[in-house]
Amino acid sequence: MDKKETSVDVLIIGGGAAGLSAALYAARYGLKTLVVSDVFGGTGGKAHRVCNYPGVSESGGFELMNKFKEHALGAGAELISDLVTNIKKLRSGFSVTTKQGDIYLAKALILALGTKRKKLGLVKEDQFLGKGISYCFTCDGMFFKDKKVAVVGGGNAAVTAALYFSEISSKVYLIYRGSKLKAEAAWIKNLSTKKNVEVIYQTNVIDVCGTEKLEGIVLDKSYNSEKNLSVDGLFVEIGEFPNDQFNKLLGLKTNKEGYIVVDEEARTNVKGVWAAGDFTTGSSGFRQIVTAASEGAIAANSVFKFLKKE
Amino acid sequence: MDKKETSVDVLIIGGGAAGLSAALYAARYGLKTLVVSDVFGGTGGKAHRVCNYPGVSESGGFELMNKFKEHALGAGAELISDLVTNIKKLRSGFSVTTKQGDIYLAKALILALGTKRKKLGLVKEDQFLGKGISYCFTCDGMFFKDKKVAVVGGGNAAVTAALYFSEISSKVYLIYRGSKLKAEAAWIKNLSTKKNVEVIYQTNVIDVCGTEKLEGIVLDKSYNSEKNLSVDGLFVEIGEFPNDQFNKLLGLKTNKEGYIVVDEEARTNVKGVWAAGDFTTGSSGFRQIVTAASEGAIAANSVFKFLKKE
Repeated sequence: MDKKETSVDVLIIGGGAAGLSAALYAARYGLKTLVVSDVFGGTGGKAHRVCNYPGVSESGGFELMNKFKEHALGAGAELISDLVTNIKKLRSGFSVTTKQGDIYLAKALILALGTKRKKLGLVKEDQFLGKGISYCFTCDGMFFKDKKVAVVGGGNAAVTAALYFSEISSKVYLIYRGSKLKAEAAWIKNLSTKKNVEVIYQTNVIDVCGTEKLEGIVLDKSYNSEKNLSVDGLFVEIGEFPNDQFNKLLGLKTNKEGYIVVDEEARTNVKGVWAAGDFTTGSSGFRQIVTAASEGAIAANSVFKFLKKE
Repeated sequence: MDKKETSVDVLIIGGGAAGLSAALYAARYGLKTLVVSDVFGGTGGKAHRVCNYPGVSESGGFELMNKFKEHALGAGAELISDLVTNIKKLRSGFSVTTKQGDIYLAKALILALGTKRKKLGLVKEDQFLGKGISYCFTCDGMFFKDKKVAVVGGGNAAVTAALYFSEISSKVYLIYRGSKLKAEAAWIKNLSTKKNVEVIYQTNVIDVCGTEKLEGIVLDKSYNSEKNLSVDGLFVEIGEFPNDQFNKLLGLKTNKEGYIVVDEEARTNVKGVWAAGDFTTGSSGFRQIVTAASEGAIAANSVFKFLKKE
């Protein structure tokens, strides 16, 4: 039996902070709004604790993103757990096919696909997520005041994380597989003045130890004659991958790191396609729940203005 | 007696969503953070109900902004109710003097001064704020589903508001003092196809009526032989003024409407001075609590990176 095509004003792909905020705003503008996502919550939903979404002093990531979801639903958006498998550009709008075989006709698309953080690939990495291991010092750094932390990486994110911890933590190890840090020179210079920071070059973290929470890490090479390093926190700052599954299909322009290039109204280079959140060049690459939510709202406002001209 | 000078890393002027979000992020970065504002809450704090801050399904504006305030305080920011009367650029950083005569030395400034909405100047205008009169259709439009509304203005904001209400409200009057709408042509053309919209030209609203809540408005000229128009909502979309008290003093660059020009990291043209929120060109001029909060977070992140290079 042929599946019926459903028409909507705006179809949002991705159910994290950006997608759900876009859905909230679009639905409140009276647009027929559909969000398709395999799971809801995005990167924020995986956070153990969120302490920096302004106005929400502390929340579990899952709980906060559930509120985003309820908020969008309450405003009239429809949310569907499914995977988009194909997008066809029509003369006007788009035809979107899902894994379950449904077809949606949409006047406008907002992509909010997010990123995947690069992991170290340790066996126990996921087990200690939120229990000592984190991928965001801006989000979780404060939990490690006066404690010992290791930061992995050698770029801007890792070096600024190490500088941050140098001010609040008792001891900081910056562990980098290369022999020369790649961060901006001024940061590297400043780092070299910090007495509680030790940079460990050409070394990798290969395991973690602890029972309930992280107690230490294991290096692939001895440092001060020891392969075991006792730390309370391990911050993995080795980058992330923007999700790119529709880039080729739609002909989306990206920067050289693969992030979708958007203008100040969250428009991509393809007419009728907006993009918001972590996998775009928006918010100068500062990837937070509040910046993603803002980009989603801006995208919905831009779609609203676009559709009102038709 | 001479007042003591107090040194801080970052001094934020303005206590609305942008300023308080900047304070939250700056304090969490471990920066010594001070917010100076005559009152706290900004434009958001004056909203009767806020229904579009993602994740907070409904809240009084005052209550929501109070949570922003508590959040920033909890992170370690200091908040002071005072007025900044003078700012001096030093060789490194700034000296800021307040009305109470205190002097603060700051390495970086974040300005978050907000805007003032243009009002009609009616005697009962403030009395009916949140009881039928609103200055933001994106925020409050949904309360007027299936009701009769009047929109005042002739620019993009007014015409898009009228288009919005044409889809959800039973009757829309667009009241404009001029003889030709100034919005984008496509919007005006679309508006002309809406059967439930009447545009009333060369007319002003001079009074409102109602007891508990708005019941009607009074025009300065008869329309269909009547000066009284029965409406449930009055949306004033005639623009706003960005607060400009420090523009000259600091030499801040603005666009031709007077909004502070910021780059993607919320930097102004003056080294050491950031600006966030409604009175900037950020977020493509879409002025919401979530966009202001995002700009504040981005500014704090940029200040953090700037200070870590020093």
